[in-house]
Amino acid sequence: MAIERATAFAPGSVGNVGVGFDILGFAFGAVGDRVTVTRRPTPGVNIRAISGVPDALPQDAEQNTAGGALLAMQEALRLPFGFDVEIEKGIPLSSGLGGSAASAVAAVVAANALLDVPRPMAQLLTYALQGEAIASGSKHADNVAPCLYGGLVLAIGAEPPRIASIPAPAGVRAIVVHPHLQIATKAARAVLRPDVPMPSFIEQTANLAGFITGCFAGDLDLIAASLRDVVIEPQRAHLIPRFEAARDAALSAGALGCSISGAGPSVFAFAREECAEAVLAALLTVFASRSIASDGWVVDLNSRGAHVLPT
Amino acid sequence: MAIERATAFAPGSVGNVGVGFDILGFAFGAVGDRVTVTRRPTPGVNIRAISGVPDALPQDAEQNTAGGALLAMQEALRLPFGFDVEIEKGIPLSSGLGGSAASAVAAVVAANALLDVPRPMAQLLTYALQGEAIASGSKHADNVAPCLYGGLVLAIGAEPPRIASIPAPAGVRAIVVHPHLQIATKAARAVLRPDVPMPSFIEQTANLAGFITGCFAGDLDLIAASLRDVVIEPQRAHLIPRFEAARDAALSAGALGCSISGAGPSVFAFAREECAEAVLAALLTVFASRSIASDGWVVDLNSRGAHVLPT
Repeated sequence: MAIERATAFAPGSVGNVGVGFDILGFAFGAVGDRVTVTRRPTPGVNIRAISGVPDALPQDAEQNTAGGALLAMQEALRLPFGFDVEIEKGIPLSSGLGGSAASAVAAVVAANALLDVPRPMAQLLTYALQGEAIASGSKHADNVAPCLYGGLVLAIGAEPPRIASIPAPAGVRAIVVHPHLQIATKAARAVLRPDVPMPSFIEQTANLAGFITGCFAGDLDLIAASLRDVVIEPQRAHLIPRFEAARDAALSAGALGCSISGAGPSVFAFAREECAEAVLAALLTVFASRSIASDGWVVDLNSRGAHVLPT
Repeated sequence: MAIERATAFAPGSVGNVGVGFDILGFAFGAVGDRVTVTRRPTPGVNIRAISGVPDALPQDAEQNTAGGALLAMQEALRLPFGFDVEIEKGIPLSSGLGGSAASAVAAVVAANALLDVPRPMAQLLTYALQGEAIASGSKHADNVAPCLYGGLVLAIGAEPPRIASIPAPAGVRAIVVHPHLQIATKAARAVLRPDVPMPSFIEQTANLAGFITGCFAGDLDLIAASLRDVVIEPQRAHLIPRFEAARDAALSAGALGCSISGAGPSVFAFAREECAEAVLAALLTVFASRSIASDGWVVDLNSRGAHVLPT
């Protein structure tokens, strides 16, 4: 007999990681969403409560990322029962920290614990992606995949994407800073030009390849040389007040690289362990100088993915 | 006292490797150029002989890739002596097998043996790139770097590029086929659109990242899923008669992937060792069916880079 009720935690995530637009992301457990799912006797998804955010999120299941993910799961598996859902948002809305992905992922991970036959991760991924698409307007896995699997991951292709883990280089930490501004993912996508000039394409592909090679080889100099986004960041930087000053301050404080987390406004950096606190302080100081409050964390690149919490 | 005369061999190379336009390449020693360099008392580069090719190559040093590379070396190092040069082309002209890179690399490797203080590889790379630019019209290192360093390599950035080795996955061989057609690199670059549409950019970056991850992780399924060029190959395929049939035949014979070598007309494939001969036969058969003669080789992805030959 399967259990009737489960709560899952899904971590925040940094999508794009600068050089991997829509394909790279890493999880970090400093923030996260909690979703509690309860079996109900008849099909359907009922969002009973959403807490933790000041603004109203849609309670209509079809308009909600957690609800949409559960509806996708229910339809795909032709489940004879339904779900009641309570969502505790721990990730600020429109922060660029993968909040919509986390709600979708936590919902399917919790619901999976209620199935008579739990499903493999690859299936959960496709359901969560369908939920995430409600918020972002497209099915890209750069938040959903790290949120579900943990760590630094690469998502290749679609329907369904193939997921590969990239090893976190030893001695490197990530710094994540959330300035208290909101940028909607759909708006941040709208500023992007529909084409990439060939020279930028070549430079960005080299940087991406260099970054991944640096991670596998543990070559921090190579990571520092290649963790530079020459395609997306220049188009979005103006959406984040003081972004360029913040990035430059992070680099001056010893960061290996610094760019925008997902669609922003959050930013992330990679740094050697011994510089990580200084990089965090540098980023916070720049935003504070413009009277922008922000939160920030030094995090592990090997963070655990979404998981059911003990009852 | 330095020696007065040296001969170097530089291997053929496959540039782009499908997913790494201008940044990825691998060397293969089945073909190569030999360049003999002799010190002469006064500065200047004198091309005394070019053999091995039916068509005339420029003997004016400034118009010749080997000559240009040596002139770049001479100028950078302010050498008080000059070089007499004999070039034996083993790589067919305009074959897409890195012939211009090989002549430039062999020349600087041979000349380096004549210096009182031999220079490091990174310096030789910049001289060879200046020679290669004479033939290709741009300084891209995807042939010069593997030709000089050997193996499968990534070139990041320019002036000078940073070189990183990518491990060849165990149990995988490359297949290289040269149909007897000529495509000039400059012409093949001219067909390329100046921009990459964003969806293709995302797909190609995912494929590149997947390919490199697959090489490091030894994940042949991942290599098979990602060794697909969705940006350059579709624009150049029409330049090679029967290319698409050849590629499909290679894949049917078990290739992990198959694409154009450099600017073409040569093609390459990756395959598990046990399929490699069948993939080679499939490619040769398709070109033969159109009465196009071709040469082909099954080669090691760990081929040695350019080196001085024993006298």
